[in-house]
Amino acid sequence: MDYKLEYITKLFQKTSKKAIEHYCLTRLWHKLDNDKVKIVTQQYVRRISEKYALTDFFIPQFKIHIEVNEPAHYDSNERINEDQKRKEEIEKSSGHQLIFIDCREDLSQIHNQIDNIVKTINGLIFQQKENGKFEPWQPENERNPDYWKSKGVINVFDDISFNKIEDICKLFDLDPQKIKRGFLRYGGYPDKIKKVYSLWWPSEGKRQGWQNFLSEDEKEIVETHVDQKKKAEHYQLHLKSNEIRIVFFHHKDFLGLKGYKFKGIFMYDSKKSNPSRGTVWKQIGTQFKLPTIEKK
Amino acid sequence: MDYKLEYITKLFQKTSKKAIEHYCLTRLWHKLDNDKVKIVTQQYVRRISEKYALTDFFIPQFKIHIEVNEPAHYDSNERINEDQKRKEEIEKSSGHQLIFIDCREDLSQIHNQIDNIVKTINGLIFQQKENGKFEPWQPENERNPDYWKSKGVINVFDDISFNKIEDICKLFDLDPQKIKRGFLRYGGYPDKIKKVYSLWWPSEGKRQGWQNFLSEDEKEIVETHVDQKKKAEHYQLHLKSNEIRIVFFHHKDFLGLKGYKFKGIFMYDSKKSNPSRGTVWKQIGTQFKLPTIEKK
Repeated sequence: MDYKLEYITKLFQKTSKKAIEHYCLTRLWHKLDNDKVKIVTQQYVRRISEKYALTDFFIPQFKIHIEVNEPAHYDSNERINEDQKRKEEIEKSSGHQLIFIDCREDLSQIHNQIDNIVKTINGLIFQQKENGKFEPWQPENERNPDYWKSKGVINVFDDISFNKIEDICKLFDLDPQKIKRGFLRYGGYPDKIKKVYSLWWPSEGKRQGWQNFLSEDEKEIVETHVDQKKKAEHYQLHLKSNEIRIVFFHHKDFLGLKGYKFKGIFMYDSKKSNPSRGTVWKQIGTQFKLPTIEKK
Repeated sequence: MDYKLEYITKLFQKTSKKAIEHYCLTRLWHKLDNDKVKIVTQQYVRRISEKYALTDFFIPQFKIHIEVNEPAHYDSNERINEDQKRKEEIEKSSGHQLIFIDCREDLSQIHNQIDNIVKTINGLIFQQKENGKFEPWQPENERNPDYWKSKGVINVFDDISFNKIEDICKLFDLDPQKIKRGFLRYGGYPDKIKKVYSLWWPSEGKRQGWQNFLSEDEKEIVETHVDQKKKAEHYQLHLKSNEIRIVFFHHKDFLGLKGYKFKGIFMYDSKKSNPSRGTVWKQIGTQFKLPTIEKK
């Protein structure tokens, strides 16, 4: 099946349990009627320093979040104020825009609101095209290291996903021979990037006893080993570590496609790590400038 | 919730398991962008004398059926010929139009085909409006006996559904006092309509031991009683019956709304009835001219 068709139909199915949210998503997609624009659902976004929010839809090319507010959102002033506060925090903290769809009224009112969002997006597409900054949704690029090398910057919102570790090496201009250890492969690159960053490609699947868990908000990774002793040893090894890792997490997306996905920059979390839970890494950044671009 | 919003969101949910069919339905609805046009799904339609087909979508106002053909439909010439034969039979037998959406290609090909269907429908709306024959989708009319009285004809495709038996009486200009039997009510009207037709309002729920089953294709009703003896007696009573019934079946629709729904004209089926199964009624017509209109 055509990738975009598969992507959008799966996205529709994913949201189908929430009737009105689903209706709004299908309408936004079909009325926008532009398969160069990507829509994602359930996007985590920073609210205040340590707090994140999950928004219904997100359009990465324009940094627009959309929240479908069912009637209950307007039941009390407290609820309305809380939504407003959340919106302001998200917009301030992320620099993104958050738009509400108020679903208290009938079909035509919902349609009017979505038509307005479509107008806003079409306006932004026009502007970006005028400025030569429009980047059409090209899923094939998401998996192409050469594309990201030429861009010079990677961001978690870009949904970068590589098929193999060699593609990660290619992105950073590293020697793929160095990741091999006999028949095995390292879990990360042996040399530091820009003399500071470790490059790590953990997997949700078990590999030689190692297993890693990415939190739902994708802000935390717990590194464990099935062998309690090895887990505790690994914990001891990283105690007081100031290691910073560029992370490509290997897992399945909602389409069922596996890949090494860029999840941001992570630092050792001394508060949350312990010998029984394992070694915990927390996200400290969502974007990374590639060394290749800095050489230019 | 607004009725049309509830109707269409539930329709979307109902189809969401079939990814491409669902995609086509959502696109057709949003691109048509006209809440005066009703779409139904899973419509039974006559194919040849005793054989029926189930089509993916149906637009009753224009008698257009739409079939979403996934790639497997084109796997062999046999399959293609079978689809074509089915299409011809349906169109010949029902006088309706059947349109295929061929989903072998990519997103833009599917979009083109749906755009063409939208053009066809918009053309038909224009024609009907020119001729003063356009009847906008008004769900409130479906439940209003006065509306159908003024139309003079009822058809199973009109999705007529009444809240109470008194509304059925109103439609036929009958005395609602006559259906009462102390605290109970009859299962049908005691007098004949046009001296020929019985008026029957069976229910899928148990009522005083009686229970009725409407087949999935809505062409057959089995009248039973929890008491085997009463069931057999009822069967004996109708043996060689030439009774013809106008049927309003009481059940829940997919929105969860209960109602007495017009299911057509039914005749006793001597072949399928037997003392253990019960008394079977088969559909012999889908339309009925009201006596009120004939008086005019």
